[in-house]
Amino acid sequence: MLNVDIPSLGPCQFASPLHQIGSTEVPFKTDQDRILYSNTVRGLEEPESALSFEEAGPREQIFFDPARTTVGIVTCGGLCPGLNDIIRGIVYQCYRQYGITKVYGFRYGYEGLVQRYGHTPLMLRPESVAQIHNFGGTILGSSRGQQPIGEMVDTLEDMGVDILFVIGGDGTLRGASEIAKEIKNRGLRKAVVGIPKTIDNDIMYLDKSFGFETAFAEAVNAVKCAYTEACGAVNGVGLLKLMGRDSGFIACYAALAGSNVDFVLIPEVSFTMEGTAGLLEALRYRLAKRGSAVIVVAEGAGQELCQAADGTDASGNKRYGDIGLFLKDQINAFFKARRMEVNLKYIDPSYIVRSVPANPQDNVYCSRLAQSAVHAAMAGKTSMLVGRWHNAFVHLPLDMVTHGRRKVDSKGELWHAVLESTGQPAIMV
Amino acid sequence: MLNVDIPSLGPCQFASPLHQIGSTEVPFKTDQDRILYSNTVRGLEEPESALSFEEAGPREQIFFDPARTTVGIVTCGGLCPGLNDIIRGIVYQCYRQYGITKVYGFRYGYEGLVQRYGHTPLMLRPESVAQIHNFGGTILGSSRGQQPIGEMVDTLEDMGVDILFVIGGDGTLRGASEIAKEIKNRGLRKAVVGIPKTIDNDIMYLDKSFGFETAFAEAVNAVKCAYTEACGAVNGVGLLKLMGRDSGFIACYAALAGSNVDFVLIPEVSFTMEGTAGLLEALRYRLAKRGSAVIVVAEGAGQELCQAADGTDASGNKRYGDIGLFLKDQINAFFKARRMEVNLKYIDPSYIVRSVPANPQDNVYCSRLAQSAVHAAMAGKTSMLVGRWHNAFVHLPLDMVTHGRRKVDSKGELWHAVLESTGQPAIMV
Amino acid sequence: MLNVDIPSLGPCQFASPLHQIGSTEVPFKTDQDRILYSNTVRGLEEPESALSFEEAGPREQIFFDPARTTVGIVTCGGLCPGLNDIIRGIVYQCYRQYGITKVYGFRYGYEGLVQRYGHTPLMLRPESVAQIHNFGGTILGSSRGQQPIGEMVDTLEDMGVDILFVIGGDGTLRGASEIAKEIKNRGLRKAVVGIPKTIDNDIMYLDKSFGFETAFAEAVNAVKCAYTEACGAVNGVGLLKLMGRDSGFIACYAALAGSNVDFVLIPEVSFTMEGTAGLLEALRYRLAKRGSAVIVVAEGAGQELCQAADGTDASGNKRYGDIGLFLKDQINAFFKARRMEVNLKYIDPSYIVRSVPANPQDNVYCSRLAQSAVHAAMAGKTSMLVGRWHNAFVHLPLDMVTHGRRKVDSKGELWHAVLESTGQPAIMV
Amino acid sequence: MLNVDIPSLGPCQFASPLHQIGSTEVPFKTDQDRILYSNTVRGLEEPESALSFEEAGPREQIFFDPARTTVGIVTCGGLCPGLNDIIRGIVYQCYRQYGITKVYGFRYGYEGLVQRYGHTPLMLRPESVAQIHNFGGTILGSSRGQQPIGEMVDTLEDMGVDILFVIGGDGTLRGASEIAKEIKNRGLRKAVVGIPKTIDNDIMYLDKSFGFETAFAEAVNAVKCAYTEACGAVNGVGLLKLMGRDSGFIACYAALAGSNVDFVLIPEVSFTMEGTAGLLEALRYRLAKRGSAVIVVAEGAGQELCQAADGTDASGNKRYGDIGLFLKDQINAFFKARRMEVNLKYIDPSYIVRSVPANPQDNVYCSRLAQSAVHAAMAGKTSMLVGRWHNAFVHLPLDMVTHGRRKVDSKGELWHAVLESTGQPAIMV
Repeated sequence: MLNVDIPSLGPCQFASPLHQIGSTEVPFKTDQDRILYSNTVRGLEEPESALSFEEAGPREQIFFDPARTTVGIVTCGGLCPGLNDIIRGIVYQCYRQYGITKVYGFRYGYEGLVQRYGHTPLMLRPESVAQIHNFGGTILGSSRGQQPIGEMVDTLEDMGVDILFVIGGDGTLRGASEIAKEIKNRGLRKAVVGIPKTIDNDIMYLDKSFGFETAFAEAVNAVKCAYTEACGAVNGVGLLKLMGRDSGFIACYAALAGSNVDFVLIPEVSFTMEGTAGLLEALRYRLAKRGSAVIVVAEGAGQELCQAADGTDASGNKRYGDIGLFLKDQINAFFKARRMEVNLKYIDPSYIVRSVPANPQDNVYCSRLAQSAVHAAMAGKTSMLVGRWHNAFVHLPLDMVTHGRRKVDSKGELWHAVLESTGQPAIMV
Repeated sequence: MLNVDIPSLGPCQFASPLHQIGSTEVPFKTDQDRILYSNTVRGLEEPESALSFEEAGPREQIFFDPARTTVGIVTCGGLCPGLNDIIRGIVYQCYRQYGITKVYGFRYGYEGLVQRYGHTPLMLRPESVAQIHNFGGTILGSSRGQQPIGEMVDTLEDMGVDILFVIGGDGTLRGASEIAKEIKNRGLRKAVVGIPKTIDNDIMYLDKSFGFETAFAEAVNAVKCAYTEACGAVNGVGLLKLMGRDSGFIACYAALAGSNVDFVLIPEVSFTMEGTAGLLEALRYRLAKRGSAVIVVAEGAGQELCQAADGTDASGNKRYGDIGLFLKDQINAFFKARRMEVNLKYIDPSYIVRSVPANPQDNVYCSRLAQSAVHAAMAGKTSMLVGRWHNAFVHLPLDMVTHGRRKVDSKGELWHAVLESTGQPAIMV
Repeated sequence: MLNVDIPSLGPCQFASPLHQIGSTEVPFKTDQDRILYSNTVRGLEEPESALSFEEAGPREQIFFDPARTTVGIVTCGGLCPGLNDIIRGIVYQCYRQYGITKVYGFRYGYEGLVQRYGHTPLMLRPESVAQIHNFGGTILGSSRGQQPIGEMVDTLEDMGVDILFVIGGDGTLRGASEIAKEIKNRGLRKAVVGIPKTIDNDIMYLDKSFGFETAFAEAVNAVKCAYTEACGAVNGVGLLKLMGRDSGFIACYAALAGSNVDFVLIPEVSFTMEGTAGLLEALRYRLAKRGSAVIVVAEGAGQELCQAADGTDASGNKRYGDIGLFLKDQINAFFKARRMEVNLKYIDPSYIVRSVPANPQDNVYCSRLAQSAVHAAMAGKTSMLVGRWHNAFVHLPLDMVTHGRRKVDSKGELWHAVLESTGQPAIMV
Repeated sequence: MLNVDIPSLGPCQFASPLHQIGSTEVPFKTDQDRILYSNTVRGLEEPESALSFEEAGPREQIFFDPARTTVGIVTCGGLCPGLNDIIRGIVYQCYRQYGITKVYGFRYGYEGLVQRYGHTPLMLRPESVAQIHNFGGTILGSSRGQQPIGEMVDTLEDMGVDILFVIGGDGTLRGASEIAKEIKNRGLRKAVVGIPKTIDNDIMYLDKSFGFETAFAEAVNAVKCAYTEACGAVNGVGLLKLMGRDSGFIACYAALAGSNVDFVLIPEVSFTMEGTAGLLEALRYRLAKRGSAVIVVAEGAGQELCQAADGTDASGNKRYGDIGLFLKDQINAFFKARRMEVNLKYIDPSYIVRSVPANPQDNVYCSRLAQSAVHAAMAGKTSMLVGRWHNAFVHLPLDMVTHGRRKVDSKGELWHAVLESTGQPAIMV
């Protein structure tokens, strides 16, 4: 069994203040409480699956003295349901469980850590965050892209920040890893703990990312609209573009929830437009059979088909061609050439899906993630993130997680369930 | 007082079967029950306002013999919340109150009345429509555009349809008027009764059109998302395009509901982009002051600014340039030229707003509209529509209503309330 | 034509600051802008209907000098959706349109106006109320019952309050009327303006009360649950108690919205339990026919049947017997005596219906009511309330409105529509 | 490692028709695909945790010949969100994946399997169940309680039912186990597969039961109302009774989601009313500190305090005293005796929480449970149920699961998180 280890700032010399909560035992964990990577008997026997992760939770001894600890929070990248819940959860946990009274909220992502931008940090208190979970977005604001690592660590030093919580996606967490390295290089005693944010649910080694439940539920509403529009016209086609740059989880789940979807297109499964086995003929056949059709396409699907623009965006991500508009044009042209009336309605709800408040599932999930993050940081863990694996909260090294993305396995159960549900051809090439 | 008269098929010789409902008095109306056009003392004194409309409701004597009456329903044009409620209301009213047992649902708009399209009509029964109000769209399907009047009347003759209920917008109702004329020319005894549908709420002489309450409530959700996105970024701009080809009611109400909107742009009020009094400078000023801004634009606003495509769509409506994309490009270019970082998020929720199920307000409103329509038709009224005026249901001649559209009065209270709420410059030219 | 007059504090000597809004004409109204009470031609001819009401809206000349005006707001009685919208609307209107900067929010109803309770008033500012419309209830808190008029006027004097906005029901508004009388007796120049609150929608001379749309929509959800429960069991009976002490509007509208209700029982229509024409036999018949039934009962229905407790509550309202539990027991006993299995599920959602946030319809309605109230008060109107009549906002004297309640007319269209929809016997005695 | 085995009807001699789905590999499982009971390294080392469960999923060889297989479905006990999703999922899976064309839906629980009740079963087809997931409840109806095992097996024989899917709670599943035994005693080849239903989420060895996500989300709405009511009055107390006869999961999760709850009372943790450490003094203290309080109580909490009625209900469950009304009376009396004004609002939303449609999370979860159940039954597994364990779907023997209930561990993380969130005394005795 290989133990996946977490970097530590040093030995824990302070007693956790959590001792003082009632006479109910605090569920303290030690670093020897370990969660199996594999949940199958077979997996245990394969060397590459015989890993174990550190279990999250409060530690009996902690690294930081709560009375002298200053905390910072920063939210980066695109909006995602639950950001405010995470912020609120960290603030509550710091104040109420550990007695920490200095929590800064850095504004507008990593920009807020670079002093020349002039974004003054907010002082966050329980009262000021009490109701923020009822709203979407992030009260701190966000921005995309990296900032100079040195300047950011300077700010942490200048402001005396001991713990930085970084909430963001892949690029952001790579930045967090670099901040942690610079902190180490300077010989500082500061923890950097990540909470992975990706509405696409594509974080490696994690059951699910926060906000995903909310986002996919919202996407289901859009699927219903696409279905209604499709049924409401002669040869109606409802074409819905959903999030999913590199992985199609939202598209798959949104399709499974209602079972009124005829085609799901995701980045993990190639398809062609033309030819007898292509999407267009499959669509023609479906229309002939049912009179209407719903297509759900993840934004990253079919990138080899639609001409991708060059360059990358501010976060360093590859820019994508617009597969939604591409499909719309191709489908309309195909049927026009065949003099067949088709009524295509194109729906692109992106910002509407991601900017809603977290639903109760995500409310609970985010507050538990936030608790885990604070416990980990107070114990001096650093360059790590918290997540959930097989229903347990665990610690993972930043570098382990940001080296890849979780994908829909085109040979696995989820995709098979989608194929069963849609009845679409398993191969459209 | 000028009475606005309604065409009639002839004298009413049958006793209404509504007599038989319990011993509670049926609220029968006569054609002498008249609703004032004006609700002000001043209006009564002005000749052009001293009109009165026939009040809707059951008549003691009716024109059609329920036992021998065949009814048809057709839904035309774009989707609108409440279509299924109207269909259900007509079917229930026909079956349960009048004892009519033949109700056809023509498929896909006026196409369904033209036999060579081959769309077989549905036989509608109370059981088959019992739950349809829980879904958006129309179970009959719809289509845009006119069809040959003669062929449609042929179908009514071939199928023995005595009453045709037409649910649709301006163009559709003009078609209904022509169908009624052709029926008259042929000397037939068939009633054509319209139920005006326009999600834009721009029907003349009507308090509100069905589906408007639902649509604007849905639009409010999109406004909240635009606001969340705007607040979540440095100089965030949430740009939301809503429905409203010729009138800006949805945009105005959606802005008033939340009071988080900075600019409302509607077809009735011109604006320019450039110049010190133009939108772009006003936006720059607002961003400087508040750090973010929300713009709600009706699709028909600023058409003189964005290059409109020629031609008309299948319903004979003028095609519109895309003011949303135009604004997006112009705003981005303006700030880029000034090297100012602006994060604009463009939201175009159109189909999502119109394809949701009717909310309870519209459930009730639609069922009462449907009841009024059936009462009117059974009394032999034709070439008319039912609507609500100052809280009363009334009959209006088709030709009176389809000659114009209701607009937001740029000098009136609604627009003034919007200006108060947004604080936008009253004049941006 | 009889003009219904509004008491006034005196001549208006200040120019409205609303002049300065852009170059768009402010829609100023004069006291000669009058709304007809009757919307029918016949009504105009009847002396008792030939009334006219003052139209609400901004006045060109105002009574109070905005720079020196202090405003107070108090919310009384039970919760109702929209209270926070009204508070927010008044604060926004005072600050943004009139430039008033002292707005007190008195805590916990009339208690907050009596100093010995020790409830310190809140200072309300636009920033502090910006998001309150997203929450149900009232940020000021509320209480039931009267307080000594003299002490309350003392507080207004001590705090220099010029305008008191009172949001509450019948009893509250009678209190407001007495406050206005005491102010007059003392020769003070203070306006008292009411905004009528009744979730039952039973205010005389008003189209609808704020919060009603939201409450009835929420009630529709409970009707759906009652229907689901009824269908889910052998001889299932879903029994739902809704609000409506003296009038059954919520029960009627909730039943009309879904058309899945079998019996509606309201205070305005008597019924008996026993006998061949009683409710129990009608229910037995319906169960035999359909296998399940839904009963919606307003809390004030059948009070002569269930033993009413004596006394009155803190607001001076008569206490009511619990008709819901009475029906539950009677129905269960009736079928048990006949050895017939019946599965009754009793649902009493009261607080859930009234404590939700206002929906968009009520958001807009409340903000326009608040605007009208501020305009009226600034013009020196007093001992009055604002409301909507036939789609226009009007001023009504407090004493005119609080002398009765609007009821569902048991011979009118609404009740007839309910009977049509439920198919219940018109007479159950 | 101890393998938990599943009873089997015999060897699988038919090839699964799932082979024919496209060229994408079907994710077939074998009985050697096993899921670990323990997800911790430590658990693996303890004998009682070193269990493994059979993984659910399609089998390459199956026991029943699809062309000759008849299926029955029965839903028992109280309503729970997702019942219709399960029914729909089974019907779709039978028809679309296995080509089975005879699926009976037995009406009204086990009553429907006893012929003398006269409930004719429904023939279920994909078209007839296509939209049922949009509605709460069960289209089959339900009933509580056992029926004679022999008569039920007679019906299965008479109707030629090969596979019976039983959806219900503890008592129902014990009945299913007895049906399976009787089938075995008679030497029949029929499978009985359970899908555990408990809105309380208290099934042993399962991550979560279907409908729980929806129910707790609905409960969160009621918590918000309780909070709104509490804040809206002087010393306001919102008292909310939620489901949870033996376990307090819904109460705990509903409290965690919003963090506006002051006391959570669950069956697993005793408390007293009186005394300095009792609930009443703790409440008095909280009111003095915050001015309002929200109490969430599970229906099974404090049963030793409120006098429990004797006897059991039709399902054989112990009847419970009404802890909600008990608390209401006790709290009111306590403060009345101390002449302290307290405004308690009692909310009991039970049927409203359980009769709503499943949310998208449960839509997906139910359809995957249904798929797993059909795969298991077709492979000849019997006297078992399907469930999810650590994110994998597994088979469990009926007898293993129905011998106990899952409880909130009063020393575990969930309860500790609740105590952290509410700040309530850990011990109130």
